Amino acid sequence: MTFEEYASPRIALVEQGLDRALPPETLRPEQLHRAMRYSALAPGKRIRPLLCIAAAEACGGSADRVLPTACALECIHAFSLIHDDLPALDDDTLRRGRPTCHVAFGEATAILAGDALFALAFQLIAENRACASDEAVGRVLALVAEASGTAGMVGGQVVDLEAEKREADPETVEYIYERKTGALILASVVSGGVLVGGDADTLCRLADYGSLLGRAFQAADDVLNVIGDEATIGKPVGSDAARHKATYVALFGVEGAMERSRALAHEAIAKLAPLGPKADPLRMLAEYVVERTS
Amino acid sequence: MTFEEYASPRIALVEQGLDRALPPETLRPEQLHRAMRYSALAPGKRIRPLLCIAAAEACGGSADRVLPTACALECIHAFSLIHDDLPALDDDTLRRGRPTCHVAFGEATAILAGDALFALAFQLIAENRACASDEAVGRVLALVAEASGTAGMVGGQVVDLEAEKREADPETVEYIYERKTGALILASVVSGGVLVGGDADTLCRLADYGSLLGRAFQAADDVLNVIGDEATIGKPVGSDAARHKATYVALFGVEGAMERSRALAHEAIAKLAPLGPKADPLRMLAEYVVERTS
Repeated sequence: MTFEEYASPRIALVEQGLDRALPPETLRPEQLHRAMRYSALAPGKRIRPLLCIAAAEACGGSADRVLPTACALECIHAFSLIHDDLPALDDDTLRRGRPTCHVAFGEATAILAGDALFALAFQLIAENRACASDEAVGRVLALVAEASGTAGMVGGQVVDLEAEKREADPETVEYIYERKTGALILASVVSGGVLVGGDADTLCRLADYGSLLGRAFQAADDVLNVIGDEATIGKPVGSDAARHKATYVALFGVEGAMERSRALAHEAIAKLAPLGPKADPLRMLAEYVVERTS
Repeated sequence: MTFEEYASPRIALVEQGLDRALPPETLRPEQLHRAMRYSALAPGKRIRPLLCIAAAEACGGSADRVLPTACALECIHAFSLIHDDLPALDDDTLRRGRPTCHVAFGEATAILAGDALFALAFQLIAENRACASDEAVGRVLALVAEASGTAGMVGGQVVDLEAEKREADPETVEYIYERKTGALILASVVSGGVLVGGDADTLCRLADYGSLLGRAFQAADDVLNVIGDEATIGKPVGSDAARHKATYVALFGVEGAMERSRALAHEAIAKLAPLGPKADPLRMLAEYVVERTS
């Protein structure tokens, strides 16, 4: 099975799930719902939902048992992109090949659409009670909330912004890699396993895999910011260097960063060895994360 | 027991809980943590935590069994104030008698501090698993997430902003009252009952009480915006009229709005009749909500 054959039907499931979960544009307040749908349904790789689903499958579970949480993870990702793009933060105007949310809908609606997507994510986690135990959903709630907040995504974003003003140092880059992207990637993987009742040893391996893959992902992203094709990645190339962002590229150059990204992905794959062929989708995802062009 | 005697020790519990839950200012990223603490620990009435605790007590439970969720509700309230005050939204510079978060810490930090407080709220709800059933916590998660999002607080805020540009109509005012403040007030009351295992009939009465009280609360707030003392309420007086906000005051005048607020609070109290003296704190809270001066 190719990655494409694996991913396509699952991405379709996730996008149908998001479409059902997002309020219709005809419902009041229409503009807010338009902005939420614009951002959450924009073309994307759906890496976090795929990781959640693949982790569930690696534990012998199926996509439908984790679908609400997989959709929740994409909502959190979309929320973070909307807020990161705001004029007061990265001030980006292009995202996924389209005007950013605040350019399309204004700043007030963008801020509130981000907030509403974050709230919707937790509604979706709660909905996962229909196909997972209350205990598992409680653990996922704790994981995802922590990964999103000050010890995770939001904290990483703050340090990322602060670091623009300074020379990149390795400790700060690791801090940002672990939290800004890494924490939610890790939570995506572990959540998938927890919801289908994965055993402690497997969950531990999934956590190691997720932690390594999160850093590999951010390193690959930073490389793409230098050598990517603007039309393919859907956002401006070269913006990190212009802002003196703290990245592996700033520390080790493009080649060095790419090597580290690949090494982290292979280390991640090695953690899955005892899980056998059930974990093949996770292995393919790790390859994809570092070799992608968008 | 006076309201003061009832509320003081419980407010102290909540503020200690918040202090423990909020990351220390000495931890990286320090500025984010400073902003979170500045907003969440600012002097406040702590109405939502008190309602949650009083509802738990009305069901025969105690404050300590709902404390994490009570603190979570205050975090969500603080998050909503930070974002509502932003230049792109209400553009307020004074809140709780102090500069608003974005004035004190800059817009980027304020946006992210709001996000981080929202994430922390869900971490706290997850922590409530230590002293409530997983099933109850799952129900509270669903309630609070829905009350915060597009069908609740955020949706209400959007319509509130939209309504500034138009003549106030009763349907829009009811929409805003039910969602902007009402939804989280209702969720606060019901959560307290759910976490301590309140029976279906009591929960139903608590929901009726919460729904009526939420509207009474917003009406009283809007009256204070006209006749309040700026030093006491801690924010500018008269700003709603200047912005043509859709309120009961705009529809019915100050006296009419105050009458409606009192009538709603008394209707709320009437719903509690079968619950006996255990519900006295909820009755006092309803009186306080409409008679307060800040």
